[in-house]
Amino acid sequence: MENIQITLPDGSIREFPKGTTSLQIAQSISEGLMRNVLASKVNGEIWDANRPINANAQVQLLTWKDTEGKSVFWHSSAHLLAEALEALYPNTKFGIGPAIETGFYYDVEFAEGVTFGEGNFADVEKKMLELARLKNDYTRQEISKNDAISYFTKKGDNYKLELLEGLEDGKITFYTQGNFTDLCKGSHIPNTGFIKAVKLMNTAGAYWRGDTSRKQLTRIYAVSFPQDKELKEYLVLLEEAKKRDHRKLGKELELFTFSENVGMGLPLWLPKGTLLRERLEQFLRKAQTKAGYQSVVTPHIGSKKLYEISGHWEKYGADSFQPIHTPEEDELFMLKPMNCPHHCEIYKSKPRSYRDLPLRLAEFGTVYRYEQSGELHGLTRVRGFTQDDAHIFCTPDQVEDEFAKVIDLVLYVFGALGFSDFTAQISLRDMENPEKRHKYIGKNEDWEKAENAIAKVAQEKGLRTVVEKGEAAFYGPKLDFMVKDALGRKWQLGTIQVDYQLPQRFKLEYIGADNQRHCPVMIHRAPFGSMERFIAVLTEHCAGNFPLWLAPEQIAILPVSEKYHDYAQNLYNLLQENDIKGFLDERDEKIQRKIRDAEVKKVPYMLIVGEKEQEANSVSVRKHGQGDLGSMSQEAFVQLFENEIKELLKKI
Amino acid sequence: MENIQITLPDGSIREFPKGTTSLQIAQSISEGLMRNVLASKVNGEIWDANRPINANAQVQLLTWKDTEGKSVFWHSSAHLLAEALEALYPNTKFGIGPAIETGFYYDVEFAEGVTFGEGNFADVEKKMLELARLKNDYTRQEISKNDAISYFTKKGDNYKLELLEGLEDGKITFYTQGNFTDLCKGSHIPNTGFIKAVKLMNTAGAYWRGDTSRKQLTRIYAVSFPQDKELKEYLVLLEEAKKRDHRKLGKELELFTFSENVGMGLPLWLPKGTLLRERLEQFLRKAQTKAGYQSVVTPHIGSKKLYEISGHWEKYGADSFQPIHTPEEDELFMLKPMNCPHHCEIYKSKPRSYRDLPLRLAEFGTVYRYEQSGELHGLTRVRGFTQDDAHIFCTPDQVEDEFAKVIDLVLYVFGALGFSDFTAQISLRDMENPEKRHKYIGKNEDWEKAENAIAKVAQEKGLRTVVEKGEAAFYGPKLDFMVKDALGRKWQLGTIQVDYQLPQRFKLEYIGADNQRHCPVMIHRAPFGSMERFIAVLTEHCAGNFPLWLAPEQIAILPVSEKYHDYAQNLYNLLQENDIKGFLDERDEKIQRKIRDAEVKKVPYMLIVGEKEQEANSVSVRKHGQGDLGSMSQEAFVQLFENEIKELLKKI
Repeated sequence: MENIQITLPDGSIREFPKGTTSLQIAQSISEGLMRNVLASKVNGEIWDANRPINANAQVQLLTWKDTEGKSVFWHSSAHLLAEALEALYPNTKFGIGPAIETGFYYDVEFAEGVTFGEGNFADVEKKMLELARLKNDYTRQEISKNDAISYFTKKGDNYKLELLEGLEDGKITFYTQGNFTDLCKGSHIPNTGFIKAVKLMNTAGAYWRGDTSRKQLTRIYAVSFPQDKELKEYLVLLEEAKKRDHRKLGKELELFTFSENVGMGLPLWLPKGTLLRERLEQFLRKAQTKAGYQSVVTPHIGSKKLYEISGHWEKYGADSFQPIHTPEEDELFMLKPMNCPHHCEIYKSKPRSYRDLPLRLAEFGTVYRYEQSGELHGLTRVRGFTQDDAHIFCTPDQVEDEFAKVIDLVLYVFGALGFSDFTAQISLRDMENPEKRHKYIGKNEDWEKAENAIAKVAQEKGLRTVVEKGEAAFYGPKLDFMVKDALGRKWQLGTIQVDYQLPQRFKLEYIGADNQRHCPVMIHRAPFGSMERFIAVLTEHCAGNFPLWLAPEQIAILPVSEKYHDYAQNLYNLLQENDIKGFLDERDEKIQRKIRDAEVKKVPYMLIVGEKEQEANSVSVRKHGQGDLGSMSQEAFVQLFENEIKELLKKI
Repeated sequence: MENIQITLPDGSIREFPKGTTSLQIAQSISEGLMRNVLASKVNGEIWDANRPINANAQVQLLTWKDTEGKSVFWHSSAHLLAEALEALYPNTKFGIGPAIETGFYYDVEFAEGVTFGEGNFADVEKKMLELARLKNDYTRQEISKNDAISYFTKKGDNYKLELLEGLEDGKITFYTQGNFTDLCKGSHIPNTGFIKAVKLMNTAGAYWRGDTSRKQLTRIYAVSFPQDKELKEYLVLLEEAKKRDHRKLGKELELFTFSENVGMGLPLWLPKGTLLRERLEQFLRKAQTKAGYQSVVTPHIGSKKLYEISGHWEKYGADSFQPIHTPEEDELFMLKPMNCPHHCEIYKSKPRSYRDLPLRLAEFGTVYRYEQSGELHGLTRVRGFTQDDAHIFCTPDQVEDEFAKVIDLVLYVFGALGFSDFTAQISLRDMENPEKRHKYIGKNEDWEKAENAIAKVAQEKGLRTVVEKGEAAFYGPKLDFMVKDALGRKWQLGTIQVDYQLPQRFKLEYIGADNQRHCPVMIHRAPFGSMERFIAVLTEHCAGNFPLWLAPEQIAILPVSEKYHDYAQNLYNLLQENDIKGFLDERDEKIQRKIRDAEVKKVPYMLIVGEKEQEANSVSVRKHGQGDLGSMSQEAFVQLFENEIKELLKKI
């Protein structure tokens, strides 16, 4: 029998008989692995795990741990959902049923007279699990277009017939498990037995093919898991995510608000949110000053010409907030969508020498970008936001060093804010792709220098990296930080981008050591990304229990009764003078009630004062989430407070 | 002979024979006063000092010290200029010749063939002084329209004839001094002898009656004084003002720049200017936090609806930066011209009780207002600027107290920045004017309360005040601070305004102690006015020698030679850590040159380091404008520096 060579992701090559399946490859490694293989990637294409491999190939086995493995699992679960629905609700017509990021859905049209809602979820889940336990194989079958049409015509599934219209004969496949057959190009898990837990989440109306003139189908959202435990964990996570939603906490903690009169997607920062935001800014400003950055301030508009030079007008003009006309002279201005063109103009405000470089210009610059109102979401998708922006103008030789310094800064910021789990995605050119190869601007040697520098620096800094070839912008390579929050959700926060283009477009120059004119390189970078997005992620990450140095209300002074209001006020003043923020609860309430309310507000320190404290000039200290810390002098508390913050910011 | 009663400004009443002139009244007080009287104000109207008074009257004698006295003096000087021109350049035709804020001008048409320019100034000045020495009286003559027409027809003065067309017979007067007669309603100084010094400043083209289709006349600007000494002082002042021009210093000290690509009137703040600006902000922020303000952040745009509610759209919409359209949904947004509507929306973000008031919302809010490009001037007239804005929402009973606190804050700010000479202009309603009386909105009792409160508080704070009846806005009374800079020029800086209107338009409410809904009062206030204008005025006031705590470059470290660069760098790092800003001059230049360059940059402290200093771990300190302070340890210098700033900010 003929053998084929299978190359595994670790680079090892193994021989197998021709026609071997991915499952068999898994089995050759371990029985345990075989039980976990959901599908495989054969030469970059996703295949059923039981599909025979007939030639040498690169094979990657996919399990639940792989995003693509999950996706196959959920896609197969959508077929199972359809099977269950067909069993429970005969004559249901099926639209499409894809996997999505957090599970899967199926768009269906129930037969007339059927009402379907949350009350029916349990029945469907039960039926799905019943069918799953049958361990029916998902069987792939190539089918002619005619046969496919006649199958769905007989079944009366007009949506599938419509989908068939767009498909080419000879490239059509059916997948069958148990009693259900679907038009599907795959791939799928080996059998339904892998699905151990399912949960229908909700339903929504969805127009067939998104066309509002067509029929509205019922979209059923669901999620499934290979273990019951995982479903339970997921539901807990969902519950927790709901509690941590920054829109909910933002309202409860009075951080920000929106107003219809101001406009959607334009946050109004309330005093407490502003305090938090200003402290974050102060923190980064300080670190930046130390790192040799200089602050600048630029206007929020720029003439249309500025964006013609930068290329933004041509590329994004039509989809932006539209130009602002002036009354008499009819000049044209744009709301600034980014700060770089303004900073280029500052660079140009005087002649520069290589001795002036690197020049690091920083600005907490508020920019405005149009988003459709339907796309807006809390602080994570807005129409106006403040970037913690900076542009480093340097010589090509300085890119490596500057990149390293920016990474240090980003790591410092993440450390100070408790983000310890992140990866760095490095986006490089794809020089093997002839289509892309020609779009990159800038000298090849400069690109190589920058790409090597990024890879080298990332390694030196011990970053966990993912390299994406072909993901570089046409103007330069970049590195993005993908941060995992406390719930394990991924967020793109900091970004560092090398740019060869803008300095050319703006004709930036410096006189080199050789006395010749040269064009500088520009590095764009934002450790937070934007204040809005960062605060949203931070809020959800710490569930509103902000680190002490950021908490808008750090202390609550709780007098036991009105008799101690004067003493409490003196204490409040002392703390104010020491820049310790918070409030004095002078309400006529029981102390227990005051403590409970301060706990709800997530105030880190509660200072209880009564007769004993007044006499001893002391405070009784309670820490949020920890309880009683006992009594201490006012000065001792200030010391304790300041030390804690020092510790927090030193740790990094 | 019949007597009349003359009431003087101090309230005293004196008897004089009917037909007494103001000069005689002055003489009755003192001969010296008589020599200084230029004109007088009789029952509020300006009269020639030698015009007989025939009935009881209130009389105020005007001298050079009064703005109105100066104005009469310069108007008479314009007649003298015309007389001189007529003597030197026969057949010159005359347009108009008024007094202006800084002197006077005359628009003239020279006879064909005459060229006139700076080279001719000395001749004209000489002729004017020659004529002045003749002490010719300015003689008033009432004249019929016919006689006036025939006079100017004969003279061929077609511009005067055109002016006559608009005048009513019986109300026409001529003034004559020496050989020159002008159509003029007066008033004038007694005789040309008062004019002791004249200076022609420059010429400009000026269309007759501002109509570009008419002939362009030559406008000759000039200034005159009752003493030669005063002219000399004035010329020194002019020279000094040129040196202090914030546009010039802003460029030299690298504070800010403009870029055509960004747009006219839109300043780009360079690193040094930004540092200065941020320190000013930090300073005010700190004072405001202490005074119970809370910071907020709001977007730079707002929906058109927001400005329809506020009334800005109707009033200023057509003259503003025009609305911003969104691509798909075609919503309309405006660049915000002020922050108050946004702050009203924040007020509305939750229900308010009288216990929450006063609520003081502060924001360094950047606003955009369209100005014609020709009107723009450095940082004092711009299209985008940052207000040190705050809005105090309070009950009517709290207005007095809040007003007092705002005045305290403004006085603190002025004190810290060395503005010691200012007056407070209080703008009230004019209830005697029936036209204006009905435009004021809000309850009469609230207005009275606020007006009385402002007057009372201003008095209590010992402010020098000027009350302007009828100058209140229709929405409330206000107080503006008019500050005199080091050159004696007046600038309007801080403002405090009471507003009854906006809270009503936005339907703001609070629940009062009576459990009923009430509308709060709003106080707008800005101690600086705007960051841009304030920094412009401050720069000119201190000629770029900013107070130590504001100087963008506080120290310059000047190593005597390269051998001491390491030591200098260590010193630099120490100072950086102590938040002392400046630079290290490592150029290969002589120490004298380095000192001179640092002096030009107006760096307050120069720290010279050489062998002696390195060995003793010390610095030799030179202070800008004071010279050598001797040598001291590094720590002693840090101490000296910090003490100086503490002293500066404490003094207030």
